[in-house]
Amino acid sequence: MPRTFPLYLSHLELGVCDYPEHVPQDRWAGYARAQRALGLRFVRLAEFAWSRLEPRPGEYDWAWLDEALETYAAAGLQVVLCTPTAAPPAWLIAQHPEVLPQGRAGELKTFGSRRHYDPSSPVFRDHSRRITRAMAERYGEHPAVVGWQTDNEFGWGDTAQSYTPAALTAFWRWLGERYGTVEALNEAWGNVFWSMEYGDFEQIPLPGQAVAEVNPAHALDFLRFSSDQIATFQEEQVVILRECSPGRFVTHNYMGFFSGFDHYRVSRCLDFASWDSYPTGTLEAVGEWGLAEPELMLDFARTGHPDVTAFNHDLYRGMVKGSTGKDDPPGFWVMEQQCGQVNWAPSNPLPARGAVELWTAQAWAHGADVVSYFRWRAATIAQEVLHSGLLRHNERPDRGYAEVAALDTAQFPTGDVPAKVALLHDYESLWLYNMQPHAEGMNYWAQTFAYYRALRSLGMDVDVVHPESDLSGYALIVAPALTMMTPQRARHLETAAGRSTLVFGPRTAFRTSSGRTPEEGQFGELSTLVGASLSNYDSLRPGMGQEVEGTEQPPHLAQHWAESYEPGGAQTLCRYRGGPLDGEAAVIRHGNVTVIGAHSETLITEVLEERLRAVKLRPTRLPEGVRLSRRGGVTLLQNWNGHAVTWQGLELAPVSTRPLQLSEVPA
Amino acid sequence: MPRTFPLYLSHLELGVCDYPEHVPQDRWAGYARAQRALGLRFVRLAEFAWSRLEPRPGEYDWAWLDEALETYAAAGLQVVLCTPTAAPPAWLIAQHPEVLPQGRAGELKTFGSRRHYDPSSPVFRDHSRRITRAMAERYGEHPAVVGWQTDNEFGWGDTAQSYTPAALTAFWRWLGERYGTVEALNEAWGNVFWSMEYGDFEQIPLPGQAVAEVNPAHALDFLRFSSDQIATFQEEQVVILRECSPGRFVTHNYMGFFSGFDHYRVSRCLDFASWDSYPTGTLEAVGEWGLAEPELMLDFARTGHPDVTAFNHDLYRGMVKGSTGKDDPPGFWVMEQQCGQVNWAPSNPLPARGAVELWTAQAWAHGADVVSYFRWRAATIAQEVLHSGLLRHNERPDRGYAEVAALDTAQFPTGDVPAKVALLHDYESLWLYNMQPHAEGMNYWAQTFAYYRALRSLGMDVDVVHPESDLSGYALIVAPALTMMTPQRARHLETAAGRSTLVFGPRTAFRTSSGRTPEEGQFGELSTLVGASLSNYDSLRPGMGQEVEGTEQPPHLAQHWAESYEPGGAQTLCRYRGGPLDGEAAVIRHGNVTVIGAHSETLITEVLEERLRAVKLRPTRLPEGVRLSRRGGVTLLQNWNGHAVTWQGLELAPVSTRPLQLSEVPA
Amino acid sequence: MPRTFPLYLSHLELGVCDYPEHVPQDRWAGYARAQRALGLRFVRLAEFAWSRLEPRPGEYDWAWLDEALETYAAAGLQVVLCTPTAAPPAWLIAQHPEVLPQGRAGELKTFGSRRHYDPSSPVFRDHSRRITRAMAERYGEHPAVVGWQTDNEFGWGDTAQSYTPAALTAFWRWLGERYGTVEALNEAWGNVFWSMEYGDFEQIPLPGQAVAEVNPAHALDFLRFSSDQIATFQEEQVVILRECSPGRFVTHNYMGFFSGFDHYRVSRCLDFASWDSYPTGTLEAVGEWGLAEPELMLDFARTGHPDVTAFNHDLYRGMVKGSTGKDDPPGFWVMEQQCGQVNWAPSNPLPARGAVELWTAQAWAHGADVVSYFRWRAATIAQEVLHSGLLRHNERPDRGYAEVAALDTAQFPTGDVPAKVALLHDYESLWLYNMQPHAEGMNYWAQTFAYYRALRSLGMDVDVVHPESDLSGYALIVAPALTMMTPQRARHLETAAGRSTLVFGPRTAFRTSSGRTPEEGQFGELSTLVGASLSNYDSLRPGMGQEVEGTEQPPHLAQHWAESYEPGGAQTLCRYRGGPLDGEAAVIRHGNVTVIGAHSETLITEVLEERLRAVKLRPTRLPEGVRLSRRGGVTLLQNWNGHAVTWQGLELAPVSTRPLQLSEVPA
Repeated sequence: MPRTFPLYLSHLELGVCDYPEHVPQDRWAGYARAQRALGLRFVRLAEFAWSRLEPRPGEYDWAWLDEALETYAAAGLQVVLCTPTAAPPAWLIAQHPEVLPQGRAGELKTFGSRRHYDPSSPVFRDHSRRITRAMAERYGEHPAVVGWQTDNEFGWGDTAQSYTPAALTAFWRWLGERYGTVEALNEAWGNVFWSMEYGDFEQIPLPGQAVAEVNPAHALDFLRFSSDQIATFQEEQVVILRECSPGRFVTHNYMGFFSGFDHYRVSRCLDFASWDSYPTGTLEAVGEWGLAEPELMLDFARTGHPDVTAFNHDLYRGMVKGSTGKDDPPGFWVMEQQCGQVNWAPSNPLPARGAVELWTAQAWAHGADVVSYFRWRAATIAQEVLHSGLLRHNERPDRGYAEVAALDTAQFPTGDVPAKVALLHDYESLWLYNMQPHAEGMNYWAQTFAYYRALRSLGMDVDVVHPESDLSGYALIVAPALTMMTPQRARHLETAAGRSTLVFGPRTAFRTSSGRTPEEGQFGELSTLVGASLSNYDSLRPGMGQEVEGTEQPPHLAQHWAESYEPGGAQTLCRYRGGPLDGEAAVIRHGNVTVIGAHSETLITEVLEERLRAVKLRPTRLPEGVRLSRRGGVTLLQNWNGHAVTWQGLELAPVSTRPLQLSEVPA
Repeated sequence: MPRTFPLYLSHLELGVCDYPEHVPQDRWAGYARAQRALGLRFVRLAEFAWSRLEPRPGEYDWAWLDEALETYAAAGLQVVLCTPTAAPPAWLIAQHPEVLPQGRAGELKTFGSRRHYDPSSPVFRDHSRRITRAMAERYGEHPAVVGWQTDNEFGWGDTAQSYTPAALTAFWRWLGERYGTVEALNEAWGNVFWSMEYGDFEQIPLPGQAVAEVNPAHALDFLRFSSDQIATFQEEQVVILRECSPGRFVTHNYMGFFSGFDHYRVSRCLDFASWDSYPTGTLEAVGEWGLAEPELMLDFARTGHPDVTAFNHDLYRGMVKGSTGKDDPPGFWVMEQQCGQVNWAPSNPLPARGAVELWTAQAWAHGADVVSYFRWRAATIAQEVLHSGLLRHNERPDRGYAEVAALDTAQFPTGDVPAKVALLHDYESLWLYNMQPHAEGMNYWAQTFAYYRALRSLGMDVDVVHPESDLSGYALIVAPALTMMTPQRARHLETAAGRSTLVFGPRTAFRTSSGRTPEEGQFGELSTLVGASLSNYDSLRPGMGQEVEGTEQPPHLAQHWAESYEPGGAQTLCRYRGGPLDGEAAVIRHGNVTVIGAHSETLITEVLEERLRAVKLRPTRLPEGVRLSRRGGVTLLQNWNGHAVTWQGLELAPVSTRPLQLSEVPA
Repeated sequence: MPRTFPLYLSHLELGVCDYPEHVPQDRWAGYARAQRALGLRFVRLAEFAWSRLEPRPGEYDWAWLDEALETYAAAGLQVVLCTPTAAPPAWLIAQHPEVLPQGRAGELKTFGSRRHYDPSSPVFRDHSRRITRAMAERYGEHPAVVGWQTDNEFGWGDTAQSYTPAALTAFWRWLGERYGTVEALNEAWGNVFWSMEYGDFEQIPLPGQAVAEVNPAHALDFLRFSSDQIATFQEEQVVILRECSPGRFVTHNYMGFFSGFDHYRVSRCLDFASWDSYPTGTLEAVGEWGLAEPELMLDFARTGHPDVTAFNHDLYRGMVKGSTGKDDPPGFWVMEQQCGQVNWAPSNPLPARGAVELWTAQAWAHGADVVSYFRWRAATIAQEVLHSGLLRHNERPDRGYAEVAALDTAQFPTGDVPAKVALLHDYESLWLYNMQPHAEGMNYWAQTFAYYRALRSLGMDVDVVHPESDLSGYALIVAPALTMMTPQRARHLETAAGRSTLVFGPRTAFRTSSGRTPEEGQFGELSTLVGASLSNYDSLRPGMGQEVEGTEQPPHLAQHWAESYEPGGAQTLCRYRGGPLDGEAAVIRHGNVTVIGAHSETLITEVLEERLRAVKLRPTRLPEGVRLSRRGGVTLLQNWNGHAVTWQGLELAPVSTRPLQLSEVPA
């Protein structure tokens, strides 16, 4: 199903991130020709080039980028240009040190790395608009330019929140607009609790330096405010780009699993989302979050885990749809795709042979229209010399190069991912959950990922979508950790339950939009739909387990979390056995709605499998590391293991993919 | 032995912490009636209500609290009111930001949580006296008011020390009063050591930001000073309460094992001490301090460990006696008693069925006259929505409610705890020990608790008392970690040894009141009494052990710490075997005085058992989790295990108690 | 080979650190006599005595030190005096608070410990010169004074870098001198990378507070600058000492494995280096750095590990030679030698019986002319009361005393350590490596120590030397982690390879002096010599291994790091088996030059053993804890184990040494 905006792409296309400013000009033409010869169509440029574009205040130097654009264009490449605001130049900081960000404790973050700016700073906003306009006027209608990336990786380096005087002033204004009166704020936040009532908005501090935990409502609004600051910062750029660069797309390159701002809010003004995919580095990170078991961290050290990467593909595929309600946004881009070792995880194993092909094919199968490798040549300067590129430091091809050369992108037609399962994801629930996890080793991502992984281990394609997006096309809707519930959200889910099957995880509807619990307790606004109320939640120390009777022997074992319900209309599907919850309901069902209260991967898988069968989605239990992803009529069978696997009679080499036509897919 | 101040309590009474300001007024009467119906007699109110009592500077709003008092009184409840200084309102901070506390590194701690005040601030002291007087004048003689709690949980949120300019000025004054001249201070502190001699008190910094460890004498005096700041802050309130509220008691609710200030010093002005008992949460904390083994942390995750809770009961029972020398203070209160899951530990397991009854009965048996549950209804707002109450969020009874309803308090007569064993505890020793633990995994609490636990595992009732308190009634006096020794303390112990048997642990009398070692080495002032001197101490890495020959096979294994003695009159009871201390004395005895130099739980138990027999106290080895506690002629047999136990022919259900009359106690 | 500067020492001499200012004057004569009676010849005095030497600004009090010097001299001791700048007095800080250092985040470090000064402070430099001149004028020609120690343990307490305004100004000046223009700096640092280009030196911040990692070139130059600040601070003192104290030596007491400054740079103005040897404490530290396995940490808890201590002996023996090129500097001193338990490690085990003798003998065998024990009497005041001395707190001999008394120093003649193996060590490589270790558990010291330990386990004497020092006398030159390569260094190594055999470890020549990678990739300037280029490096997660085919069965297992090479002239000695590097070169050889790319202790040992045989150095595999060290014609056989060992028919008691004459050494 080809799209017309801004490019007609009939199949996956490839790109690369390149930095002509890092190398002598005599290299440019050769690099561009080699890129094109390798089958690359796009090149991303200039996201950190401000100091070269404006070496001194107000003095622009376009010559080098003019020349670079001509050179890439001459070789047949199309260019994605970036607003360079992620790296403000030293002269700007010297003139206006007040644009520097400050951390939680008020500590100043100085020049010398990147992202050293406070998005609330009015001065920096002026400069952001100025440099954006200057670039957009110069290159907005350049024939080689097909689109724009705003800034770079919002939030990187823990910069999603800033604790500056400018942020404080903006926060007061934001709260004033949200609540009208400080009395309304006090009421919404429940500030009577510890005598936290304010007499004036200007008495409200930023939440970074209190004696202990602040009111979650306070923290939650600060996170919303910070998301809005990033969003409006970006929107100011996008308005200028739309004006000066008609017909070009605008995107932003997000990071995997990043939690520091509401990506749906920030994505509203984009044409599509992009993200930067580093499967081995992200695996290290998720190990720290408890998403992956220790042995899995070793088994998949050289490929990353399929579901970790897939989750982010599925998340960003649905991002613009989720934030704007646009029916048919273009496919997303992987703006930076790992093609060798990364440099930023504690350990950085070399990818397995075949991994670059595997990652590229998976990205396509999950809806990517373009995969753009990071980076052309490994940097020989500064912070990232230990990071790989398609070329080694010495300009000879590195291992990933040959895999890219071997890709036949015609195998990968664009088209829809035919997901009939939606997984609901929401940053406000994430924030509330992770502020008060209540159980060591438990967090929003660990809970959400357990459901996602179960679905993929059952062979399902999954859309990760916002709970308030259009849910009408889904047979099964899974909300693993939808802890924040509002009246309108509840009505939306009730409507969805009228036509789809729903599964909720623990802590559902435990908090209101102010971080309160409903006066009627969990499930609050969702009580009628669920037909039950919360009895108790149990937080299990690591090492403790709580048995749940399932249909299988032996019983399931909940870890970290177990909550029980008092049915009021719902039926009890499974009960706890032993322990303080003995005999109480662990899984309940009320019409189309099922709630799983126990955190147990086997229980989750069992319930989801049964629900999938009920809606005729034909689940199939896949071995670890073997996955199916479908797009445009093709089923991509993947083996992420470092050893060969035989599945349904199909032989799968280590770290390999196999596109199956419909007739080839095992029944 | 009933008491007349301020109430005649013939048996245990129950209470609750309630927050009328958190709920609509239409709930108040119903809540109060339900509380009374449940058998509760006391309600604690208003500890965080300043912003409601004085919404704007100098504008008091008494109406709601007038009404609340009437409502509770009408239902038959008696009220404990609190001075609300633990939560200064936002307008006060806006007017006087200098009252905010600062941390070790000078970092400001801002509004937004609680305890955001520096007790050294003269401005805050003014406001503290003002609001105390206003409340005391309004309610001091209200017939429903039976007593006062000052402030709330001094030191919570790491606020026992503050590093403000006001604290610095006050510290200089305090040092001037203590030492007279800076030369005397230099001499006492040993400041010649690293050229740390001061020419003027005003050259002395607060000890938070030095390049490395400061002089222990410096740190020790700062801790003493900080305790005095809390004590005088409280005393200013108590003077006003005594004046305006005659016949009412004054108490404060301390925290378990809290080490940040000298509780004996702070308790001097109180009628009795209270504490806030959260057995499951405290178990998590003591796991981090190395007090409890990993398997014990799992076995007792749902009840807490009996000795952890008991230690604090025994500590706070003796607190006012220890600080004032009053002969017969009233029984202590548990001002906040966990009655469901807490929310502040890393993991927060649901209590076992029966735990609330068990905790209540144990508190009584250790001398509590009142147990007051925290809280009536689980909060639906702000920081603590994950904490339980007797009612759930939805106002329906939670699990603990039924257990409270089932309590027959008539079973629990007031009266004395007939402890014949004293365990000596001292905050200055604690501070000196923990400043320089010298052995990974070792600290004052771990050492002290090992002795306490051994005594309780032998069936003993124990008074935890200050080393300078009246020791005349005890058959056995155990000083596990009395590292700080003064001449007067030494004389006091010599007197005690004239009539009682004494047992000391390692590091006894190693430091003077200035944190020096005695010029004559350990045991300094106690040398004559002990009849020996220190030979060497050995700090054992985790994983290392040092054998000690005992009367049992195989030999005991010291871990973390082993010190040897050169007897000079004392006899050697046990010797080290192997290692650098081979053949040297590990346990010595000189008349009534025994010193155990090796940290080994089996050795400690063996020596204490022998000493108990020697003084005819009839020790009995109890199984893990089974405990005996005696009060008012009743012996409370407890089973803290999650499984049934048979002990001496008595069947004990899981998590249960059994009050035995004298005739029922097995011989 | 006796030396004449400043003392003729025919054999090892002993000394002690003493603090007359800590004890009453009536003790001095007795202490001095006892020291001499114990066989001690030197006493170090006054390194922290500034507040006694100058109690008030400009008022010197020499009387006590005059008297002390007379007392020690009368007893026959010779004195090493110290400049007391490591502990500036309180009045100086009160007058000039700007001399206080600041940490990475700009946090002020206050008075109350030691080393509270910023070496960049012009005010403090004035005072440093002033007090140095005053002492030197007073005592420079005192007959009892044989030498000087500057300051004390530069860098202790994380003070090697300071982040003050004075440091910033000095850094700008330093950079200006190094680069001339800011454009040259931008080019050298590769500042174009993240728009980090500066328009003026005064735009360059200190590197402590950036959003994330700064440019390694920035960090590297700050470390060089900081080393220069320490060096010039010391040089200012040395100039004065040379002027006022002719014929006396000047040294400084460094710390083991300390990495905070370039010791070669700082040592240029010294006559010889000293260091402070605390074998048990350092073992704890190296456990944290991953230098020692957990079981080794237990086995050698009471002695330290022989190679850990030996490495530092070998390092400081070659320090002045390495920094000045002087042909024949005097033997080094152990200025502070542990003689009982230390107090600063997490756990501080008592040394084994015999350890003090063992440490002293080993120090001699590695080139120490003097071993000076820390300290005479255990301190009874302030921070270090838990640290031992030769005397206990009570002035009675502690365990080490008897071991010192038993030493027959005539057994230990001075003379050369006949090392034919050089191990190259370089602080700039260390810094670059550790800034970006890239593999969890890997660092410069772990890699370097693996090679050193292998050499010592093969019975070799080793000189640790700077890569640009004179290498002409060595048969084998091992460069375990020489990651920084310059053209002149490469030429120097090429020359060395003309006459010696060279072995390099991984990451060799990966970075230039600006922290860049060579444009031609690893091995950059060394490519011709090595005859190969880097193919890939693999960073192995803990738990992962990479097999390497060696000559032994089973294959070696690389952990943490494996890099492979593309030979261009070199031959492949070993290949990787399995994994992404399957079949690629792991060990290569090109003429005299061997490169080991895999981090595997067994592989390293195998290759080094073969190389040693090739150069006729007769390696012998020694059991763990058994070591050979040679000096002045004597071979010192050591058993560091706590159990007896038989080696080559020789019986070795636990923790013992045995000097062998040439005829006794097993062939």
